[in-house]
Formats: sequence, structure tokens, C-alpha cells
Amino acid sequence: MRRFILSILFIHLSVFTTSVLAFEYLQPLPDTPIIPADNPQSSEKIALGKQLFFDNRLSVDGGVSCNSCHNLAASGDADGSAINMPARGINRNVPTLWNIGHMSTYYWDARAKSLEAQVSDHILDPRIMNFSNAEALEQRLNRLDGYRSAFKKAFGDPRVSMENIGKAIASFERTLNTPDSDFDLYIKGDKNKLNKAAKRGLTLFNDKGCLSCHFGVNFAGPAPGPALKMGDGFFEMFPNYRGTIYEDKYRFVDDLGRYHVTLDPEHKVMWRVPSLRNIVHTAPYFHNGAVNDLHEAVSIMSKVQFNYEISESEVADVVEFLKTLTGKYPEISLPRLPEQNGVSVN
Amino acid sequence: MRRFILSILFIHLSVFTTSVLAFEYLQPLPDTPIIPADNPQSSEKIALGKQLFFDNRLSVDGGVSCNSCHNLAASGDADGSAINMPARGINRNVPTLWNIGHMSTYYWDARAKSLEAQVSDHILDPRIMNFSNAEALEQRLNRLDGYRSAFKKAFGDPRVSMENIGKAIASFERTLNTPDSDFDLYIKGDKNKLNKAAKRGLTLFNDKGCLSCHFGVNFAGPAPGPALKMGDGFFEMFPNYRGTIYEDKYRFVDDLGRYHVTLDPEHKVMWRVPSLRNIVHTAPYFHNGAVNDLHEAVSIMSKVQFNYEISESEVADVVEFLKTLTGKYPEISLPRLPEQNGVSVN
Repeated sequence: MRRFILSILFIHLSVFTTSVLAFEYLQPLPDTPIIPADNPQSSEKIALGKQLFFDNRLSVDGGVSCNSCHNLAASGDADGSAINMPARGINRNVPTLWNIGHMSTYYWDARAKSLEAQVSDHILDPRIMNFSNAEALEQRLNRLDGYRSAFKKAFGDPRVSMENIGKAIASFERTLNTPDSDFDLYIKGDKNKLNKAAKRGLTLFNDKGCLSCHFGVNFAGPAPGPALKMGDGFFEMFPNYRGTIYEDKYRFVDDLGRYHVTLDPEHKVMWRVPSLRNIVHTAPYFHNGAVNDLHEAVSIMSKVQFNYEISESEVADVVEFLKTLTGKYPEISLPRLPEQNGVSVN
Repeated sequence: MRRFILSILFIHLSVFTTSVLAFEYLQPLPDTPIIPADNPQSSEKIALGKQLFFDNRLSVDGGVSCNSCHNLAASGDADGSAINMPARGINRNVPTLWNIGHMSTYYWDARAKSLEAQVSDHILDPRIMNFSNAEALEQRLNRLDGYRSAFKKAFGDPRVSMENIGKAIASFERTLNTPDSDFDLYIKGDKNKLNKAAKRGLTLFNDKGCLSCHFGVNFAGPAPGPALKMGDGFFEMFPNYRGTIYEDKYRFVDDLGRYHVTLDPEHKVMWRVPSLRNIVHTAPYFHNGAVNDLHEAVSIMSKVQFNYEISESEVADVVEFLKTLTGKYPEISLPRLPEQNGVSVN
């Protein structure tokens, strides 16, 4: 049976078993995500976070910036990640950063409880930024006058610290939102924004049970707020029905997900429910990026989560609905990074 | 003695041996570089080239875009390259792309005769983009409708071809110019733009012989034009005087430069003369990136090229002059890349 392991929230599934659309679970994207009280937004912090986001010097070898794997010129994930990441020892599909502020936990296994914590986790991960300790990065960036003045503006203290690096990048990431998808305009009242196939797809999305997990502003369960405390995850078992042909074909259970964090046997193949926004842009699919085609992904979900067979035309309708979740990407100007001044900081 | 191996140009060194400033060799940066007749600029081509420049899908494993090593948020080279590049099998310092259209050949060893040719060379280099043939990249990009329409707009033909990839990226790269440095404004008549130390530095730059190679709009010898055909390189021996302490310390002759391209013994330790624009931003220095500090680089040049000892205050004055070569970086908006449409193209 389907199971949630959600710390504080329990959704009554019966809500979703009728064929009446559960519109209270369909919500447009808010203008901004919830901002944590201990890291209020400021233009200085956002500007600094953007510089850090695009700076390769945040990796030990200067090889990658945040943007290398979470490409903001595209879908905020790593196009080609399914090919590239295993070479780095990463066997999980890079999640998109668009609308990331609407999530309550970070990583597929929810091992970081905040965007801020996730930053330092990346910096110290030997497969990613590969610093052996925070001080090494702090010292490198402290040698750049441009960063010292930017940290002074953002935090009142010119000293570069890992804590403030995390706060600045998280502040920038909370601006990465894609509002005004056709779905959002539809739910706000413009009923022409979904064509007939997309409307059939939305009905199927509710009736078949997809909405029982993929609800809320980000189609990823509850956003942080009254219903779900920041840091508490919204999880689902995947695959829920075991032993399907898909499980073998796509090696879905080679990775045990949340279990690797908690070592609790109850958490085997539990995963944070991912967002569906902009999903036509974020191929390949699933935690291991094993599935290239969204149609196939929908068929798989139906079978392995609900043990339904779903017809080709139903799949096509659901995909037509999912296409309406593509929002408007904001224009982003490339920041100017703090420059060296005749001396290499590396 | 000093030697040029320049296919068609011979500079009369006597011009530089007087202490009179050779002002005809000091030129401000033109608004645009020379545009080759077979690849005229167009806004559509430049826009397409910018998309390709920021697209990781131009590397086999999706790991790097052009911008990964030639970071336009910074100095157009790889901050940290001296650390990162050896891991990729590259032991040469990444040259900046700013003002690159003013060069007549590409790479430290001038093995590419045009910006267009340099693009396909990067795509097929196993250490960089790592495609085994052009068709593999063409096929990948041809699967993206957004590229097909962009190629149609730029070239009248929707089919993605390596030739047109090269033309588009080169067109974009020819827009990457940093005009209006203090030096440029000075040479155009604003005599206050150089302070006293910088003026002393400019005089030293001429008197000590630096200008005999680092002249012209890019301080890298003749730009392509009447004096130097596109594709013909402007080379210099480095080190010119052998056996100095620097040669050992910085392993300058581990790499034989142009010789590796031509196998002509005359070309051992011959290098394309690099630009000095924005040089305070492009640390570390020299073909192997072995020198971290610009002051040390100036001392080294004096000793290994001219066998002069140069005083600390003279070095400081030359550095003060070199600081005036920092131009205005244009604002760059991040492009939106052609997106997948529910199917991974990798």
C-alpha cells in the first residue's frame, strides 16, 4: 500500500479518490517562496549570491560553479547529467533549481534541511566542489577585495564565511521562480489556457491519483509553511508496487534513497516527491535519470505507483497537461565576478 | 638574439630602440575587430553563437560549455585553470576570450588559423568537448527544435552543421570586446587617465623593448588586416635567453610550443605573442600558468627576453601601466537555451 513518511503532515487520501477535481490542492505559483526568518532577502545578498553561484572558484579545482550542473540558461538542471554525473561518482539525476525555494527539503533523499545547509554540503562534497573544509574556501574568497566589499554590503562584515556564503546563495536561489505557466493562468481564471487534451489530462491527473503526491504550488506536496515545517520532508515510496518490468529495465531499486541517510529499513526506496514544474524541459526522468521520454515516465508512474495500466491516449493527455506547467523563466544578466588584481588567488 | 617567425611581416626593431615613444604602435581598441568576408556578422548569428557558447550539450558528457573555461562573468579565462587544467590533460594556461577577434591565430601554438576553425578543434579535442566526430554533435543539436529554428534564422538552413556552429560561435566571440580602458582614453587624448607611475611605466614599456612585441590594438602584435593576414601568426621565442634561474623554477621549456605543431626545430619554444589587455585579471601568467604574480611576470620578461635586471620600482611602474589596460566589460544577459520537449536529447 501507498505510504507517506511525513514528519508532521498526514494527507487524507480519501480526498483524492473522488472524480471531483480537488481544486484546493491546485495552486498557482506564489510570487515568492517562504523566506526563512533568519535569512531575510536583500538586494545586496541576492547580488552576492548570484556572483557566488556563477563562480568556478567555489570548487577546489576551479572546474565547476553551481551553474555548471544547475544551468540557469536552461532548465536549471544538468542537460546531459544522465551521462556526465556517473563519471563524477554521482548516480542521481540533478534536480532543477527553478522554483527550488518552494521545497521544504533538499536533495532526492532530503539530507539537507534548508537551502542554506545544502550549499555547504555541496562545497564539502568530494564529488562536487570538493573542499576538505570551509576555511579553505573562505580563505580563497577573502583574498578577493570584490568579495570582501560585497560581503560587507550584504552582511555588514567583510569576512567571507561559509555561513554567509550559504545565506547569500540561498537568497539568490529563492529568486529563481517561473510563474505564469498556462496552468497558473488557468487556475487564476483564464479557462482557455488549457486545451481540451490538457483538461482531460488534468482530470486524469486527479482521478488516477497523481495529485495525491504532486499537489501544492510546486506539484511536490506541501510547500514550507503552516502545513510543513521547513526541513521536514514530503516523501513517497518509489516504486510503490514492486516487481514490475520497469523496475528491472530501469534499475530503479539499485539506489535505496532516503534509507542511505537514515539507515531506517522503513525508508528503503523512499524519495522526496519531486516538482513537476517545467517538466518537459527536465528530461531525463526519475532519481536515476534512467528514462528519456516523458510519455514513458507517465506510463511507469501509473504502473509502479498505482498498478494501473494506462492507455496511450491517456498518457498523451496527461503529457499535454504537464506541458502547461512550463512557466516564464526570468531574464538573468550574467554577474561580473570579483576579479583578481595581478595575483592569482588559487 | 631576438627572433620573429612571422610569415609576412617583418618589424624593423630599430624603431623601438630609441627612447622616443613609438606612438604609432600604440593604438586604442577599435569598436569591432576585422570581420572575415566569409562570415559577416548578423544579430541572428550572434544570438545563436551565444546560445551555443553557454550550452553544455556541446561536450559529449554534458560536463562543460565554452563558458566553463572561458568564463565571461569574469576575465574570459579559467580562474583556477592552473589547478584544474592538468587534471584534464591540458598543461597550458587558458587564454582569455576578451578581445579575441583582434588576434590573427588561435591557441598558444597558433594551431588554428581562425576563430571558426578553433571551434571545431575544441569540439573534437578529447580533453575538451570530446566528440569523436562532427556528426555526433550535429545529430544531438538537430534534435532540438529551438536550434533548428535558430540555425534557419542565422543561415537560412535549419540543419545544424559543424561549419555553421563554428561561424555562429566565432560571430559571438567577435562581440567580446573591452573598450575604453584608461589607456585607450589616454591614447585618444585624455592625458589625465594615466597617473605619473603609469606614464613612467609606459615609457619603460617602450624603452625596455616590451613594445617591440606587445604593440597594436591588442598589445599582441599586428591585428589581422593589411599587415598580417588572418591565419598568419605573430610569434616570439620564450624564453629568449636560456639558462636563467626562472627557466628551471617555472619549468618554462617543458613545453616546446609551436614546435609541437610544425615539428620544425626552428620553432622550439616559439609562442604566439599573447595580449596584455585586462592582464591584472588574468593571473596566473605565461603559457603554463606557472607564475602567480604580475610583478614577478614583469621581472621574468625583462630577464629572459632581454637579459636586463629591472629594479623593483621599475617593475611597479610597468605594473601600474599594465593596470590601465583594463577595459569595460559589456553586460551580458544569459541566453535561454533551446529546451528539450519531454525527451532527453542525450
